[in-house]
Amino acid sequence: MDEATRKEYYELLKFESVGADPLKLRDCAQCAAWLKAWLERLGFKGELLMPDVKDGKAAPPILLAELPGAEGAPTALVYGHYDVQPPDPLDEWETPPFEPTEKDGRVYCRGAQDDKGQTFAFLCGMRDYLSGLAEGAPRPTVKVVLEGQEESGSAALSEMAPGLRRRLAADVLLVCDTHAAPGLRPAIIAGLRGVSHFTMRLTGADRDLHSGEYGGIAPNAAQAMAELVASLHNPDGSIAVFGFSDGIEAPEHEERRLAEAFAPTEEAMAAEIGCPPSGGQLGKTIAQRNSFEPTIEVNGIHSGYGGPGSKTVIPREAVAKISMRLVPGQTPRRAFDAVRTHLEAHVPRGMKLSIEDYTPGAGGFRLPLSSPLFRLAADTLTAMDERGPAFVWCGASIPVVSALRDASGAAPLLVGWGQAEDRIHSPNESYSLAQFDKAREWGGRIFAALCQR
Amino acid sequence: MDEATRKEYYELLKFESVGADPLKLRDCAQCAAWLKAWLERLGFKGELLMPDVKDGKAAPPILLAELPGAEGAPTALVYGHYDVQPPDPLDEWETPPFEPTEKDGRVYCRGAQDDKGQTFAFLCGMRDYLSGLAEGAPRPTVKVVLEGQEESGSAALSEMAPGLRRRLAADVLLVCDTHAAPGLRPAIIAGLRGVSHFTMRLTGADRDLHSGEYGGIAPNAAQAMAELVASLHNPDGSIAVFGFSDGIEAPEHEERRLAEAFAPTEEAMAAEIGCPPSGGQLGKTIAQRNSFEPTIEVNGIHSGYGGPGSKTVIPREAVAKISMRLVPGQTPRRAFDAVRTHLEAHVPRGMKLSIEDYTPGAGGFRLPLSSPLFRLAADTLTAMDERGPAFVWCGASIPVVSALRDASGAAPLLVGWGQAEDRIHSPNESYSLAQFDKAREWGGRIFAALCQR
Repeated sequence: MDEATRKEYYELLKFESVGADPLKLRDCAQCAAWLKAWLERLGFKGELLMPDVKDGKAAPPILLAELPGAEGAPTALVYGHYDVQPPDPLDEWETPPFEPTEKDGRVYCRGAQDDKGQTFAFLCGMRDYLSGLAEGAPRPTVKVVLEGQEESGSAALSEMAPGLRRRLAADVLLVCDTHAAPGLRPAIIAGLRGVSHFTMRLTGADRDLHSGEYGGIAPNAAQAMAELVASLHNPDGSIAVFGFSDGIEAPEHEERRLAEAFAPTEEAMAAEIGCPPSGGQLGKTIAQRNSFEPTIEVNGIHSGYGGPGSKTVIPREAVAKISMRLVPGQTPRRAFDAVRTHLEAHVPRGMKLSIEDYTPGAGGFRLPLSSPLFRLAADTLTAMDERGPAFVWCGASIPVVSALRDASGAAPLLVGWGQAEDRIHSPNESYSLAQFDKAREWGGRIFAALCQR
Repeated sequence: MDEATRKEYYELLKFESVGADPLKLRDCAQCAAWLKAWLERLGFKGELLMPDVKDGKAAPPILLAELPGAEGAPTALVYGHYDVQPPDPLDEWETPPFEPTEKDGRVYCRGAQDDKGQTFAFLCGMRDYLSGLAEGAPRPTVKVVLEGQEESGSAALSEMAPGLRRRLAADVLLVCDTHAAPGLRPAIIAGLRGVSHFTMRLTGADRDLHSGEYGGIAPNAAQAMAELVASLHNPDGSIAVFGFSDGIEAPEHEERRLAEAFAPTEEAMAAEIGCPPSGGQLGKTIAQRNSFEPTIEVNGIHSGYGGPGSKTVIPREAVAKISMRLVPGQTPRRAFDAVRTHLEAHVPRGMKLSIEDYTPGAGGFRLPLSSPLFRLAADTLTAMDERGPAFVWCGASIPVVSALRDASGAAPLLVGWGQAEDRIHSPNESYSLAQFDKAREWGGRIFAALCQR
């Protein structure tokens, strides 16, 4: 890393931009202003958008910046986030969490990787590309959106995105906030599942009742919730909700082949999670179940007594938290409607059902393997590393990416350079100079490639 | 009430005998000593048994007293408890909780009814009987056992009872700690269900997992517990556990007829509990379901996230508390073995089951309607009140009664004079002079009847 870049990188890392901490709002604002100035030195025109105050809480600013390109040239939208996880537990840090410290080729600091490091490296690559252009050469329009709330849910940007359609409109959405495959082999996130969630509550009697005096008489909310939750799946683990899976787009043969090729074995997964990987439908592979199938997952059930010993009550109420992971062909609304219809049809005798806190979230997506963008990315990464990219159809969700995809119309291209040893979200987070260089090289190459296509 | 009895009753009530409160151990001991002296004035020989210290906690003494009767005369064992519920919340008492206060024919005090009042009134009746006997007339052997831990589970007496078989041996076990029917109509508890309980735990992965990254891969302990709990019952509400109901003694026609006659209607029960009384098996009546059928009840389920909003985890662990109400023909051990076998056979894929804190508790019993004791009690109560007794096959359990029944070999006869307005366990507990007189009359009459049969 050249000294000028290192100096900037360290300046950026020193901002204590913990987006979730109201006491760090000023640090976040300063960090956003620093990034705005940095982009403006490249010719961007930047603006700091202040989200509405919600529930008395202000949110960190959203930086929106644009560098107009040649007429007819493609438009790239770069998304990243400058907020970081809280540094707690502080006493486990070997160096101060906001004092970048280099050791054995790695920079230790909160945000060294996630996502100040990755995004800044990528933007440095973009700068390399822009500064290398011949005078008057056609260049793409570049838009940059950097938020300060990703680690706490991206609420403001997700809400504002639909109103920023025109300013976000782009052909490709570039995100450098994910992992490479082991051994720093490049990886393209070829798909993400969507996510929706809600809370459901069953209510029976008007109080917890004595299990002797009322046993056999009063309906039991804990038992009722068990029955209702159990009704969501068939004995083979498949989803039993009528209509939920309607319209799901089956993966193409090539997607299946690549996903299987990069999926962990059952044995490796058992070692990773500490039990047999028996979730999902019997007879389907790990790659199918995690990459191409939706889930309905119970995130929690709580009802009645849970303390030491016993309390022989008939619980009056039970609450379950449900989340759904969605795949292409499903929409959050249709999936939820199917689940709600199922739940209402299966309410156990004597119970009242209420559904609360429904959050539609976002649908899932898969990049078409045959799309020019996908091939461009794969070729670019193969030029960087002869192993070529791994392809990851990720079972997780990045709702803000879906929101930006919807608002911008852009095809998302998620390539990041994280590794497990970076320990993001934990004490002693770090990012190696080698990773930084890869992310920077990727940033330069993908812009060049986009303009050549 | 005569003044001498009232003076004694009030003395007894003033002891702050909160058995569950270690700071009131001295009050409990003084209360027990007072009762011992009271019985010894009638000719009893008493002893205060000190339970073993458990987990560093001493328990209130158990008073065992005996008055030998004529050779060949029956032996009656009287059980009661001198401990009371804590008086909290103190500020809701209109008079001091341990200062007996008479108002409109009712005595207000903690323990005025439960169970210092009921037991003392009953013992006063016994005293009336004994003092009315002609010189040299044959009389029964009377044994009295009074404990100070009933409100917190009767642990010490239940544990010591098997070792006291010889000293507790009796023909009839007299308990005055229950309710009369509405309108102070006499009631005989013609049966009680038994109770056992345990905790079950399902464990999957070695930590809570991200529901995106591992959804469709990792087994979900909350969903697994829902399936396991749901497997315990059939869709019609009947118990689905093979062998659990083996050997259950069906009620006789007359028991069914009487239980139906005194059972609340579905409408009355719905009003009482605030929801449809839809527990138990479809097609059976409230009396059947509560009096003559066993239950397997989930007292609580806890797993995963239960806070505000959402946390999209796959819970690694789920815990459920289960209690069973048992009816004659079942034994706690056989019932539990059937449930455990069922649970082990239904453990969902990927989960480990562990069963903890199994407490066998006690079996249920029913008094044979045709037994001489039952007819004696019914006749005695009919002589007291022309309406005759109500018969209650109670869905609840009094495990200490079962323990004493097993240890003494005696047939339990539970007749009490409580009414809903006594507000036991609540502030402003009270017992009317009319109730006291009924309990006292009953005490005198049943002893007389026992000796005449």
